[in-house]
Amino acid sequence: MKNFLFIIAILVFSFSCKKELTSQQNETLVKQNEFAIIIHGGAGTILKKNVSDEKEKEYKRKLEQAIRTGHAILKNGGTSQEAVVKTIQVMEASPLFNAGKGAVFTHEETNELDASFMDGKTLNAGAVAGVMNVKSPIELAVKIMTDSDHVMLSGKGASLFAKEKGLEIVDPAYFYTERRFNSLQNIKNKEKTELKSADKKAAFYDADIKNSKFGTVGCVALDKDGNIAAGTSTGGMTNKRWGRIGDAPIIGSGTYANNKTCGVSSTGWGEYFIRSQVAYDISAQMEYQQKSLKEATADVIQNKLTKLGGTGGVVALDKNGNMSFEFNTTGMYRASMNDKGELLVKIYKE
Amino acid sequence: MKNFLFIIAILVFSFSCKKELTSQQNETLVKQNEFAIIIHGGAGTILKKNVSDEKEKEYKRKLEQAIRTGHAILKNGGTSQEAVVKTIQVMEASPLFNAGKGAVFTHEETNELDASFMDGKTLNAGAVAGVMNVKSPIELAVKIMTDSDHVMLSGKGASLFAKEKGLEIVDPAYFYTERRFNSLQNIKNKEKTELKSADKKAAFYDADIKNSKFGTVGCVALDKDGNIAAGTSTGGMTNKRWGRIGDAPIIGSGTYANNKTCGVSSTGWGEYFIRSQVAYDISAQMEYQQKSLKEATADVIQNKLTKLGGTGGVVALDKNGNMSFEFNTTGMYRASMNDKGELLVKIYKE
Repeated sequence: MKNFLFIIAILVFSFSCKKELTSQQNETLVKQNEFAIIIHGGAGTILKKNVSDEKEKEYKRKLEQAIRTGHAILKNGGTSQEAVVKTIQVMEASPLFNAGKGAVFTHEETNELDASFMDGKTLNAGAVAGVMNVKSPIELAVKIMTDSDHVMLSGKGASLFAKEKGLEIVDPAYFYTERRFNSLQNIKNKEKTELKSADKKAAFYDADIKNSKFGTVGCVALDKDGNIAAGTSTGGMTNKRWGRIGDAPIIGSGTYANNKTCGVSSTGWGEYFIRSQVAYDISAQMEYQQKSLKEATADVIQNKLTKLGGTGGVVALDKNGNMSFEFNTTGMYRASMNDKGELLVKIYKE
Repeated sequence: MKNFLFIIAILVFSFSCKKELTSQQNETLVKQNEFAIIIHGGAGTILKKNVSDEKEKEYKRKLEQAIRTGHAILKNGGTSQEAVVKTIQVMEASPLFNAGKGAVFTHEETNELDASFMDGKTLNAGAVAGVMNVKSPIELAVKIMTDSDHVMLSGKGASLFAKEKGLEIVDPAYFYTERRFNSLQNIKNKEKTELKSADKKAAFYDADIKNSKFGTVGCVALDKDGNIAAGTSTGGMTNKRWGRIGDAPIIGSGTYANNKTCGVSSTGWGEYFIRSQVAYDISAQMEYQQKSLKEATADVIQNKLTKLGGTGGVVALDKNGNMSFEFNTTGMYRASMNDKGELLVKIYKE
């Protein structure tokens, strides 16, 4: 009898330790980085064979410039908030990404920009949807957080708020780029011809159209004070209509930050990211299931999101400075930099 | 030695069972109701001394009419989706609640309506923000889910979509009610006089203004097929400006449904509900921590939301037909009805 109980004791004990060990094996519970920064410039069907060497270099140079901007701020003791904003602004100012200057066109041939920001210390947040004349939507998202009683503003009202607060207003033509305008025309032509009598929904599943949605930018940073901040900025989906709002300005879907757990910025097929609560779900799995950042991002992207049919990815960073890139597409423009100044810049799945 | 291990075995075993027992004690794991429905008509500072008997009766009558509408649908084997929509439409058509007909006024003296809907079986969702001429925003939210590739549409684009789909379009004047218009004027006058030189933020904390935000309506239903649906509809905040979007149209904050766990509809100070991810957090605690519906709603509202400074409440219902009202205000217009036809209609905290 006692031998039997002895065996049970060992079994029960082993079993109750197993879960903890799994987490400990994967997660470094000690501070991995005193400060760290991670960014993305969109995920999608990005294949080496379709990208010229010159284009590849161009993307990598811009990702490096962006992340070094934020890294220098963190290194000098700046806040994660400042690092996230300044890093995203480098990408917003570049025509390479679908955010700010390089935003895609709506069905009505306008550019309507979305962004969101969250502060992991206070759980304060700001978000903007559908602004057409604000140069830096991420700056506006932060201003909404700091200078209004609201979390989310939209459309002309949000522009008015930006103007009142002295943010840089530009002529909507600032967001015109030939490349993005041509993308819209291609898609419209495709809709008119090939899909004339077919299921209209097919347009949404067309590879060209699907990929033209990607290119959102995002950044998550941990500063020396242990504060995590996350931000996301986008032009949304090419040919979007009916005032469509994707996941980028949705707190909990496109952006989430909590000093207790992690910070996350999403990019991909926004509708699925909203339905899956991608950004907050990663934090919830860490808080409630004691998963490591790696385990949580993998489950949410590779398991839950994928099962639902969604595509895209996230960059995430936890309170100990662990960092994670996770995506289920063939590529994601991405970079990370730790407190030792080690830089990673990647595009394809590896 | 063996005795020692025996004691350890018992301790470890007891400990590993404890968590499960706590949940089992509180949650009815067997099917509590084959079908069930729960609604709210807003939470806030609702005190018996401020409500006339006649007004109280009027609210209770309308809540009962609304919930009986959905209950009859469920009883006859209808879907939770239909029950939620038809129930909310009764409240949208009434001037008593801040949704549809009774929507509050924005700073610009317009009515801008928000709504969202989620289907717990497919995790599909639809949401609309800032429409001014659609009679039933909850119907539009469902239409966005079923007839577009998107989850969230906004403003004039959303109205255009509604028109294309044949939904009932009304003159914006339909949403005019003297009571709501006077509320706006009172608040504007208060802003001009009392708060002239004071911190502008104070207006937001003024009791009158704070309470004028409430009155959102929502419904969660479980049908005989075990499908959960949740929906929320609102006019937002009196005197809202800058295209402010609250939590009602945000999936995961204002509305969430998942057949695996529960369905939730929120009402309250929207900004805090977004930052706290109220609706999805309840589901996450049930899924990841094996909490009962009661435990999860209590933690999210009484602990997490309250600590952050947010006020309001939720109605929620789990896959076994357990129902929960949870709010941290003095009242919430609310009702529930189970498969035995037992009706609860309440207003104040009890």
